Amino acid sequence: MRSVTEYLWYETKQRRELINITDRVETIVSGSRIAEGMVLVSAMHITAGVFVNDHEPGLWEDIWSWLQTLAPAGPDYKHHRTGEDNGDAHLKSILVHHQVIVPITKGKLDLGPWQQIFYAEFDGQRRKRLVVKAMGE
Amino acid sequence: MRSVTEYLWYETKQRRELINITDRVETIVSGSRIAEGMVLVSAMHITAGVFVNDHEPGLWEDIWSWLQTLAPAGPDYKHHRTGEDNGDAHLKSILVHHQVIVPITKGKLDLGPWQQIFYAEFDGQRRKRLVVKAMGE
Amino acid sequence: MRSVTEYLWYETKQRRELINITDRVETIVSGSRIAEGMVLVSAMHITAGVFVNDHEPGLWEDIWSWLQTLAPAGPDYKHHRTGEDNGDAHLKSILVHHQVIVPITKGKLDLGPWQQIFYAEFDGQRRKRLVVKAMGE
Repeated sequence: MRSVTEYLWYETKQRRELINITDRVETIVSGSRIAEGMVLVSAMHITAGVFVNDHEPGLWEDIWSWLQTLAPAGPDYKHHRTGEDNGDAHLKSILVHHQVIVPITKGKLDLGPWQQIFYAEFDGQRRKRLVVKAMGE
Repeated sequence: MRSVTEYLWYETKQRRELINITDRVETIVSGSRIAEGMVLVSAMHITAGVFVNDHEPGLWEDIWSWLQTLAPAGPDYKHHRTGEDNGDAHLKSILVHHQVIVPITKGKLDLGPWQQIFYAEFDGQRRKRLVVKAMGE
Repeated sequence: MRSVTEYLWYETKQRRELINITDRVETIVSGSRIAEGMVLVSAMHITAGVFVNDHEPGLWEDIWSWLQTLAPAGPDYKHHRTGEDNGDAHLKSILVHHQVIVPITKGKLDLGPWQQIFYAEFDGQRRKRLVVKAMGE
């Protein structure tokens, strides 16, 4: 069994940002020389998410406004008694999930034609990271 | 390490459909001769989901009406500027997640007594596929 | 390849309860003597969830009230024609997802500083279980 672990760091300019990280994950997988296996892509913070969907700017706007509807930013969270103001970012992270697994087949990410991997930052403007761990043979 | 990769194709008659795929995944796992490992079941399209829940038709109706409430079909998505009309299907896919991992123990899917694996089609009536990848020993 | 499979049983006092299970998963991983790999933590019931987030009681209150807003308990579920009264618990399970994968790096759970693993019981007061399966080398 072969495994490789790398950490991707991001410090977004906006508080909320979507970043297509497919190429960076692909590069890690190529470098791992794993032909058959799986790669886990997982946010290491509880106010960020990772999901697979479409590289289409209109859809990104839809996703943001949808997340604001279902898990709105606001002053009313009990979590804010700690001094934080990011209660909504925790709920958004739970909603979109913080991780995906992508199969590795014949040395490549085995994604469908429109599937791209996104890092969803819900409380950025500081250094945060993801773990990318590939396992296989 | 042993691994097996298979693709399941579906072309649903309805635009939205739930399909219990547990038996097909079980067959792939049996054929793989993996005794201990994990199997990833992952939609390869961004307008479909995979989840584990109950084989109970009343519940399926509840799931559909709930998904329509939280991620309604409608004309107002920015994504529709591309000519598509399936914005809701993308959001539903993110909501239910597009993949599950099932442990393989003693050669079988290690599911609880009521756990069944479902493919959730949100924009069907065309050929679409899932990847099923098992890894283990 | 090395693998270990253990089952964690819980019988909550309340119908709905959040339990931090990070230490129990860490103990299983230590005992497995896996240095590099992944551990799957997955509810075996369809009315429970597993997620990673913050150990902060104010946030837990936010999560509960948010889940009640998005997937409210109520009498109106079609699933209740079977005699059950836990329709909301199924939807909550789908919403938060029933599983997470945690990377194992240098023999430890490779979590971010605030990441903790929670079992979310949505229909407890009876014996229910999770599967914890670690794989690696």
